Amino acid sequence: MRARVFVTLKPSVFDPQGTTVAEALHALGYAAVKDVRQGKYFELEIDAGSEDEVRRLAAEAADKLLANPVIESYRIEVS
Amino acid sequence: MRARVFVTLKPSVFDPQGTTVAEALHALGYAAVKDVRQGKYFELEIDAGSEDEVRRLAAEAADKLLANPVIESYRIEVS
Repeated sequence: MRARVFVTLKPSVFDPQGTTVAEALHALGYAAVKDVRQGKYFELEIDAGSEDEVRRLAAEAADKLLANPVIESYRIEVS
Repeated sequence: MRARVFVTLKPSVFDPQGTTVAEALHALGYAAVKDVRQGKYFELEIDAGSEDEVRRLAAEAADKLLANPVIESYRIEVS
């Protein structure tokens, strides 16, 4: 099964990459884009028996390796 | 409205970051993780009238700035 992990900076953490992307989009004429947050995206192909097990393994991987829990939060989708 | 843009390397493009993450997970004991692909994730806050318009603006932003169409593909979700 495939787990998708989205890692983003916590809302209270300044995101200079996102701000730079937003400024670049404004320079290109996209004034409708009010805010941009940039994060990381992982697709994990996991060989496990159940959706719950896949979710548990993906959450462990995110806690230990994919995200820095001090400044980042993550969200998991299993399909 | 919020558009979420997922940018990943095309399947035919080698993904050394993903391979490194997969190897690190194996070293941590997660043999069930068979494959990892890493990508970028953007949350765009877009001020537009309709969901279609938000999707159109996000696709233009992805084509022009967020993704490199030669080696990357992207997917958009609007909520």
